[in-house]
Amino acid sequence: MTYCVAIKLDAGMVFLSDTRTNAGLDNIAKFKKMFTWEVPNDRCITLMTAGNLAITQAVISLLQENIDHPENGLETILSAPSMFRIAELVGDAMQVVQTRYGPGMSQTGESTMSSILVGGQRAGGAHRLFHVYTAGNFIEATPETPYFQIGEHKYGKPILDRIITPETPLDVSVTAALLSMDSTLRSNLSVGMPLDLSVIETGKLKFAQNRRIEEFDPDFQRLSTGWSSALRKAFDEMLHLNITRQDPV
Amino acid sequence: MTYCVAIKLDAGMVFLSDTRTNAGLDNIAKFKKMFTWEVPNDRCITLMTAGNLAITQAVISLLQENIDHPENGLETILSAPSMFRIAELVGDAMQVVQTRYGPGMSQTGESTMSSILVGGQRAGGAHRLFHVYTAGNFIEATPETPYFQIGEHKYGKPILDRIITPETPLDVSVTAALLSMDSTLRSNLSVGMPLDLSVIETGKLKFAQNRRIEEFDPDFQRLSTGWSSALRKAFDEMLHLNITRQDPV
Repeated sequence: MTYCVAIKLDAGMVFLSDTRTNAGLDNIAKFKKMFTWEVPNDRCITLMTAGNLAITQAVISLLQENIDHPENGLETILSAPSMFRIAELVGDAMQVVQTRYGPGMSQTGESTMSSILVGGQRAGGAHRLFHVYTAGNFIEATPETPYFQIGEHKYGKPILDRIITPETPLDVSVTAALLSMDSTLRSNLSVGMPLDLSVIETGKLKFAQNRRIEEFDPDFQRLSTGWSSALRKAFDEMLHLNITRQDPV
Repeated sequence: MTYCVAIKLDAGMVFLSDTRTNAGLDNIAKFKKMFTWEVPNDRCITLMTAGNLAITQAVISLLQENIDHPENGLETILSAPSMFRIAELVGDAMQVVQTRYGPGMSQTGESTMSSILVGGQRAGGAHRLFHVYTAGNFIEATPETPYFQIGEHKYGKPILDRIITPETPLDVSVTAALLSMDSTLRSNLSVGMPLDLSVIETGKLKFAQNRRIEEFDPDFQRLSTGWSSALRKAFDEMLHLNITRQDPV
């Protein structure tokens, strides 16, 4: 499985992904699901993937091939004039890959379901966040729905719903994303450390953060432990409301 | 959808269910999913259902028919000598109903998936909790896994994992169950108020609580609001850990 979350704020964007993949419970591996491109002062782009690994890796490779071979004269996510066009290019790559492998995979009953979150900012344009589906179509994050999740989304959703609005500051959103991941890691064995985190500040056109958080990262451990005790304290406060002491029937 | 949770503690048992059912998003109704039987000083039993409503209602009706017609001389959940036997009778009723309707439903592609939580105590025996599956087979709660959930289980699981052990007192467990339900209500529209709550104290052989919690129940609203602010406070504490202020790459 996978858990990736991307948040679009007025102040910028936060992307967080895990790195565990599994083909059945007995076949677990570590694969990067976050891919970033930065051309300082021109654009920074983060892309995260979930679903069939062969499909999503092929999409990434296709996007990268076009970047690596400018002699082919193809438009790439580094030459595209806008974030919208970048989302279209990601969707197009998804369609190419789905067309190539989809029919064969369907024959053996394999799922080709894949989803990609892609966001960033291009000089002269706004920062934007898109969710690209299996068919290459996509939706965009809005002020009403400022974040997208792919993969195992349920465990980590409540904290985001309680905290995230477009006005939330970047550091607060990073903390919310990390706690959202912490809840997911605790509840779903097929989501696992290490994590990849990238943060984009609006208008800066370079990454404010772009780093891996390793399994025994002391800061993340401090957050995870701190959250456990803070939740326990919050729960204990609820007991003082005395709402459960009803008369017996 | 549905959310039901049953917890088995040293001190007794807690059962909580919602009442919303839906056949598609445009067909929502209110149905009781918790059924209780009490013979003071002999036994008290709580049963909760999820899955196909026609199937689970038929199971309940079958169990009740046998109770209402002692002249048929059939063993019932009120005459069975043990909680284990009661779980078997529930499983048997499930098999009867599945055999009657399963083939027809399969032909039209309808799911017959259903699950039932049944727990309680019989004079002379321990209190026990069982999870009965579609095929009538079942598993029992143990000290390592002291609670079962059916229906939409993900949103409400983290709080239970953090709080519930066999040693948890009854009132603390009721609070945990209500907060587990609160998280689920917030995140899944197809889980809805009112709620049904029943509580059994070990050895008492009658319900300590067996009541409905209505939509605007002031105690539940106080809990829900209190939990929101306590979580927000817990989150704010996390911000003071300053773990997100990394140097830029």
